[in-house]
Amino acid sequence: MRYQDHETPVFWLTSGPVDIYPEVREALGRPVLYEHDPVFRARYARVTERLRVALRTTNDPVILQGEPVLGLEAAAASLIAREDVVLNLVSGVFGDGFGWWARRYCDEVLEIRVPYNAAIDPAAVAQLLQARPDITVVALCHHDTPSGTINPVAEIGRIVASHGAFLLVDAVSSFGGMDVHPDDCGADIFVTAPQKCLGCPPGLTIMSVSERAWAKMKANPRAPRASFLSILDWEGASRVDRPFPFTPSVAEINALEAAVERYLSEGPARVWARHALTARACRAGVKALGLKLWADDESIASPTTTAVAVPAGIDAAALLQAAQSRCGVMLSAGSGATEGKLLRVGHMGPTAHPVFAVVAITALGAALHAVGVPADVGAAVNAAMQVIDAAADLPQ
Amino acid sequence: MRYQDHETPVFWLTSGPVDIYPEVREALGRPVLYEHDPVFRARYARVTERLRVALRTTNDPVILQGEPVLGLEAAAASLIAREDVVLNLVSGVFGDGFGWWARRYCDEVLEIRVPYNAAIDPAAVAQLLQARPDITVVALCHHDTPSGTINPVAEIGRIVASHGAFLLVDAVSSFGGMDVHPDDCGADIFVTAPQKCLGCPPGLTIMSVSERAWAKMKANPRAPRASFLSILDWEGASRVDRPFPFTPSVAEINALEAAVERYLSEGPARVWARHALTARACRAGVKALGLKLWADDESIASPTTTAVAVPAGIDAAALLQAAQSRCGVMLSAGSGATEGKLLRVGHMGPTAHPVFAVVAITALGAALHAVGVPADVGAAVNAAMQVIDAAADLPQ
Amino acid sequence: MRYQDHETPVFWLTSGPVDIYPEVREALGRPVLYEHDPVFRARYARVTERLRVALRTTNDPVILQGEPVLGLEAAAASLIAREDVVLNLVSGVFGDGFGWWARRYCDEVLEIRVPYNAAIDPAAVAQLLQARPDITVVALCHHDTPSGTINPVAEIGRIVASHGAFLLVDAVSSFGGMDVHPDDCGADIFVTAPQKCLGCPPGLTIMSVSERAWAKMKANPRAPRASFLSILDWEGASRVDRPFPFTPSVAEINALEAAVERYLSEGPARVWARHALTARACRAGVKALGLKLWADDESIASPTTTAVAVPAGIDAAALLQAAQSRCGVMLSAGSGATEGKLLRVGHMGPTAHPVFAVVAITALGAALHAVGVPADVGAAVNAAMQVIDAAADLPQ
Amino acid sequence: MRYQDHETPVFWLTSGPVDIYPEVREALGRPVLYEHDPVFRARYARVTERLRVALRTTNDPVILQGEPVLGLEAAAASLIAREDVVLNLVSGVFGDGFGWWARRYCDEVLEIRVPYNAAIDPAAVAQLLQARPDITVVALCHHDTPSGTINPVAEIGRIVASHGAFLLVDAVSSFGGMDVHPDDCGADIFVTAPQKCLGCPPGLTIMSVSERAWAKMKANPRAPRASFLSILDWEGASRVDRPFPFTPSVAEINALEAAVERYLSEGPARVWARHALTARACRAGVKALGLKLWADDESIASPTTTAVAVPAGIDAAALLQAAQSRCGVMLSAGSGATEGKLLRVGHMGPTAHPVFAVVAITALGAALHAVGVPADVGAAVNAAMQVIDAAADLPQ
Repeated sequence: MRYQDHETPVFWLTSGPVDIYPEVREALGRPVLYEHDPVFRARYARVTERLRVALRTTNDPVILQGEPVLGLEAAAASLIAREDVVLNLVSGVFGDGFGWWARRYCDEVLEIRVPYNAAIDPAAVAQLLQARPDITVVALCHHDTPSGTINPVAEIGRIVASHGAFLLVDAVSSFGGMDVHPDDCGADIFVTAPQKCLGCPPGLTIMSVSERAWAKMKANPRAPRASFLSILDWEGASRVDRPFPFTPSVAEINALEAAVERYLSEGPARVWARHALTARACRAGVKALGLKLWADDESIASPTTTAVAVPAGIDAAALLQAAQSRCGVMLSAGSGATEGKLLRVGHMGPTAHPVFAVVAITALGAALHAVGVPADVGAAVNAAMQVIDAAADLPQ
Repeated sequence: MRYQDHETPVFWLTSGPVDIYPEVREALGRPVLYEHDPVFRARYARVTERLRVALRTTNDPVILQGEPVLGLEAAAASLIAREDVVLNLVSGVFGDGFGWWARRYCDEVLEIRVPYNAAIDPAAVAQLLQARPDITVVALCHHDTPSGTINPVAEIGRIVASHGAFLLVDAVSSFGGMDVHPDDCGADIFVTAPQKCLGCPPGLTIMSVSERAWAKMKANPRAPRASFLSILDWEGASRVDRPFPFTPSVAEINALEAAVERYLSEGPARVWARHALTARACRAGVKALGLKLWADDESIASPTTTAVAVPAGIDAAALLQAAQSRCGVMLSAGSGATEGKLLRVGHMGPTAHPVFAVVAITALGAALHAVGVPADVGAAVNAAMQVIDAAADLPQ
Repeated sequence: MRYQDHETPVFWLTSGPVDIYPEVREALGRPVLYEHDPVFRARYARVTERLRVALRTTNDPVILQGEPVLGLEAAAASLIAREDVVLNLVSGVFGDGFGWWARRYCDEVLEIRVPYNAAIDPAAVAQLLQARPDITVVALCHHDTPSGTINPVAEIGRIVASHGAFLLVDAVSSFGGMDVHPDDCGADIFVTAPQKCLGCPPGLTIMSVSERAWAKMKANPRAPRASFLSILDWEGASRVDRPFPFTPSVAEINALEAAVERYLSEGPARVWARHALTARACRAGVKALGLKLWADDESIASPTTTAVAVPAGIDAAALLQAAQSRCGVMLSAGSGATEGKLLRVGHMGPTAHPVFAVVAITALGAALHAVGVPADVGAAVNAAMQVIDAAADLPQ
Repeated sequence: MRYQDHETPVFWLTSGPVDIYPEVREALGRPVLYEHDPVFRARYARVTERLRVALRTTNDPVILQGEPVLGLEAAAASLIAREDVVLNLVSGVFGDGFGWWARRYCDEVLEIRVPYNAAIDPAAVAQLLQARPDITVVALCHHDTPSGTINPVAEIGRIVASHGAFLLVDAVSSFGGMDVHPDDCGADIFVTAPQKCLGCPPGLTIMSVSERAWAKMKANPRAPRASFLSILDWEGASRVDRPFPFTPSVAEINALEAAVERYLSEGPARVWARHALTARACRAGVKALGLKLWADDESIASPTTTAVAVPAGIDAAALLQAAQSRCGVMLSAGSGATEGKLLRVGHMGPTAHPVFAVVAITALGAALHAVGVPADVGAAVNAAMQVIDAAADLPQ
């Protein structure tokens, strides 16, 4: 039997959106309240406060009413003034894309670029900041999802902090799946989202903004105001006596409340551990299949996405199609510059459980067979299981 | 007994968001698919096509991934070029607000303004267009929700068409509740939304764009591109072989599909009839309560929202609070310039049934009592019921 | 406009099933766990414990896996031994029906019967018990829903207790909507259900069993065992180490947990108050419509159902049909011996809010008009509102 | 990391209940209608008709309002008259259990018993029927779930038919997952259920009754009437003008409608194929793990449940616990006489996809490791994948 394109896959182990947690699904069934209803206002305040706890910050988080592409564009438009000099750190598609926005809002954008299978070297950042003391804003994509690679945000954060520039971090697909928080890495604007590791539907941006970033945005005459792109409009929007700038996405807020509550209630450390273990097991399996990880060094491979290099001569799309057709398992293609070169297994939220690594490896193995590449699925599963078994003996 | 603020109201007869249809709630419970999943791509194509049918147009509708404030801002930013001369027609808060955006994108914005309880006079539009043949864009809010009043969009549309200007219509809170469609009124951009008469949660914009509006936007070098504010980015996004500009709000799309299907399946004429009848019954009751409609002429009162003038000396907020506290019925306050002057009963989607008019009148009556104003609730209900009874005898 | 039969009503103010609370709907969306899953076992234990609190008893409640007709039949079959002499108290259809079951399980069933619009007189019970000291079981339907009348269960309970007989109480449609609990009335078996005042779907029986009733059932060789009709099989079934006799209705248990939690969290006294107020307002309105309550004395009218006598010469079915056709409001017909003679408005769970009394009265009034009976709906609503207004001034 | 008992498993690959299909979950969110509502009556009629199509019979199916233990008991109580001679065919726990009920309702029950890892031999049935022409009822459990074995129902059905006895078939856990239907096997009463292969919650019985079985039950003075155990009470209950004997489980009926629609829409042959393939892959993997199937002959192993013999010296409970603790995968224990001797992997409804066989094998392998038994998980997965790969090449 084969799975057809018009059939919902049995699993989607994609790098987001992934399917949602059951608790989130329940919350989507709640009444859609009027935005001015005190009950909804209280919920909005509560979810903001719980996000604050999850983000381990003292700032009131901001929720923007669009998926995080909105948050990133809004951050660029609000934080970057015409006179700023921006250092954009590029190790992948999203890092590269941010440069476009940065150039839209200021005249000089410097970049440090590394190949899309490598991570930014903090020393290079330190060096350039020293050479260019006029750099005022540094932008970093923590986890560049199309590459499945992680940048050393904490080290870079310390360097930027000692320099004094503002740091803008895209942690869309890492927050909630690993130990990364705005204040720990000195982010002035930290953008994340519900639809990745929190197991929510896409449609909102979660943002942490430092006090000095608020001040900088307010001082920026070109920062969007009275606009869907505005961050400033949403300052203090969680206070129950402030009108919202416009109608928030009530159902998505309901869902987000359940997701954050679930995250805090399972325990962040436990959540990160299962993301990490799933990724480690997956990488072990991938290598045992005879495939190469996309990351040039496994130490920068993301705990929330495993990017696998597509072997020379193999059509990436055909491989993905075979995984779906043979096993009903949908994986992610590369995106933009990585399309055709890699494929990705997401380990996010409800799919961040080790047994899903076995599912992914099995589907990958079946797909390799289907396109005529010999692969020992069994050996790959054994390699993954060794990782999982070893972790079972760790003290909890 | 009294209802407390922390209790979900028994009814929210607000002018949106209202609670959603059961079919929509079911759809929110569906799996949240990966955006590139062919099953989701097919759904997106299908909902776009069904929206096209509902909008009675031949153009492929556009779905923007934010509530209609996004759509309106995007329309202003995309359609209005620096050299345009815009005529903004202002009969209420939203019409007025659009002027802000228009002025952001061009140098000259003319306005025809009427009091917020009146409608735009087509003759005045004709006259001004004649006087100013250089007007290139006309903007009209069809139903200015904070006033509950309807502008004569068809007549204005004909006048604008013969003049040749582009027409931008905000039909956010009228489409789906009355007979208004983009091509019927000659709208080049027609902005509406799921969260009012379609009974969906807020979070999306529905937009119809004429061919010449697409051409104008493409020719506009300042039209947003590679931006959350872009309309152009979404051209053809419903084609299954085009990547989305960014991740659409999967759960909201699921909900929208159910809502449009429901609308077409109940039958638009039937849906409009129950909106209209509910509003008529409500107005009869309001008048019999001794209250005045906000609209200076009942013929312009909206079938989807009944705005009621708050009597002199009465605190609008206290009245609304009493309706909730006494009956568990949440109504809408005015908004912006109409706040404190009127209150509103929404008749939208699942609340557009005549019996809700009785609920609203009862709550209003109880609220009047509570603040010390004598009111004959019974007489008001009788007045509403006469309207309803009379409609029962009409042939279906 | 008219509502058609194939349309879901706008409201169903029936005497059960009524639509469910939103919290219950959410819970129905939970994963359906394996019955032996410790998570489900813990939930089953928890819901049993919360039911115990709600029932204000020290006995572990029993949940039978069928709607309460199962519970009542099982109680008859289990408690009544061949040698028992049963006194069945009949004030309505359900009381009468229980006699059939009683006669199935023992040789002598005595009855006290009153007209179906009256309540059992405790003095008559005392007298008969004195005359017949051999009576061992007394059965009483607390709220005979097809009549909407309440029997004085506490007084009868005291009389039965001093006599020493076992008391079996059917509180299916009263528990959760008024102050009635097994130990307060001395019930040895107390049968109730989720689908009435708790706002759950139908499909389960909730039962409280006294220690001596357990002993009597165990001593009864004909009490069902290894049977769907068995109560004994379910003794201690909530203990996590005991296998269930068969698979419980997992989704219904999920729903019940949410319902009981909601009931305790709103506060039973508050819940009863809104049931009582809704019924009082409804009765005032019904009388002002010129209709007669079915109960011969208003003091026995149920707070959870208002039964209205159908005027002579009027077809009850036509009246109900008109309420649905004109207003989209579904009411209940009589049942069995009361069919055609009365109609009923349910005040249960989510519909036990005073404003629903107005909806019911309006629909009734519209229905009277439709069948040609003049009725002053306005006066009726005023009468209901007077009751509601008066209650608003009561201290909370 | 380890999964704790209080955590919902990642997968429950149990032999029922399994988690439900997404379409079923959506349907559980529908309004809970009043049982007399014409909309609900129409739904009940529709689901009955669709069940008829799914059962491939011309008889109107009966839905009993309790899980299939109710249906089996009701069938015994209704069909078996005091004077009947029953032949009960016992190849497992459920077959054995039916004997208890049979003996309750008649004086002579004959049995053919085989070990619980074997199937009934049709020749033995033929021989006994020849020897005892007075046998009037034959009872067969088609799939005895606690053993995971299938009896040859079609052959036995032909033999019983030529003898003339009534045939009662328990197909609770086989119908919907393989090609078995009442008329194909000559069943006079065919009992099945939504909570196994149809992917619904437990709480209902689905039953097909032949014309002559209706006649026999009506002629049986002891067949339950006016009872929860009655089948007769439900004759014709799907006709919209007949009152239900008592309130059906509205939410479960909503769910069942979605499940049957889904089954027919995917296509029964396709559904059976994925059940069969999943089971075949699972068996291949189990054997490659060095474990033995419970069935003495693989040809009788069920396509909906794989029963695995627990190796001597291994504690079955510890093995199951380890599968959950290591992988979050819940499997089923044996039940009754098979408890401790086997464990079971369910392949039912939403879990009947080949990739779940890999999940089960992986969890089993991890569990073996955990209890100290060496097992080559990789070889087992390879064995399973060979089966799956081979099936991919089959024409669809």
